[in-house]
Amino acid sequence: MKIRKKKYNLRVRIWIDEEEGPYLGIGRIILLEKIKKTGSITNAAKSIKMSYRKAWQLVEDMNNRSHLPLVKKILGGKNGSGAELTKEGERIIKEFYRIEKEINNFIKKESKRITF
Amino acid sequence: MKIRKKKYNLRVRIWIDEEEGPYLGIGRIILLEKIKKTGSITNAAKSIKMSYRKAWQLVEDMNNRSHLPLVKKILGGKNGSGAELTKEGERIIKEFYRIEKEINNFIKKESKRITF
Repeated sequence: MKIRKKKYNLRVRIWIDEEEGPYLGIGRIILLEKIKKTGSITNAAKSIKMSYRKAWQLVEDMNNRSHLPLVKKILGGKNGSGAELTKEGERIIKEFYRIEKEINNFIKKESKRITF
Repeated sequence: MKIRKKKYNLRVRIWIDEEEGPYLGIGRIILLEKIKKTGSITNAAKSIKMSYRKAWQLVEDMNNRSHLPLVKKILGGKNGSGAELTKEGERIIKEFYRIEKEINNFIKKESKRITF
């Protein structure tokens, strides 16, 4: 008799804490990416079904708590006010995914040793 | 002028997926530990403010989805019916924390390279 071997996968979620508490996780990273893509906080919020108020609060919180602002608000312009990422905002996204990738590489190796 | 350097910490949460979806995370591990400590599903559930029904469903789900049962129900006895962990249940807890520890060791090294 052969016992069917089930497949178990190790999964992981990462986030960055700062002295005042959770600072940056995948939710906020996605919000930053959407701001980059859509050019405004309003459109970014819509695209992930988040209220504008909530998105705005998250942006304020990130801007206040990081060394340098991550999002820059643009007033006026032909499409009304918008927002774009600062260089620091772009860098933070890359850094987040770099870490996530390294941890996932480690976990791939680790998964082979799991005996659940 | 000196810029105050903020302290950022990389945090991680792990869980095990199985073909049918999420199978084992820290919540279920804590439930197993409480069953071990209190000797019953009822008391374990109470100690983590979970309904008995929910705790019982989680135990059933774990028992059905792992190679071997993790929790053994004991009928009768002077304290009424109770529950205890099987050897496999004990092993799974250790394995979960072993993996968590290895990942946290990796993350400690990784944290030094983070530039948030």
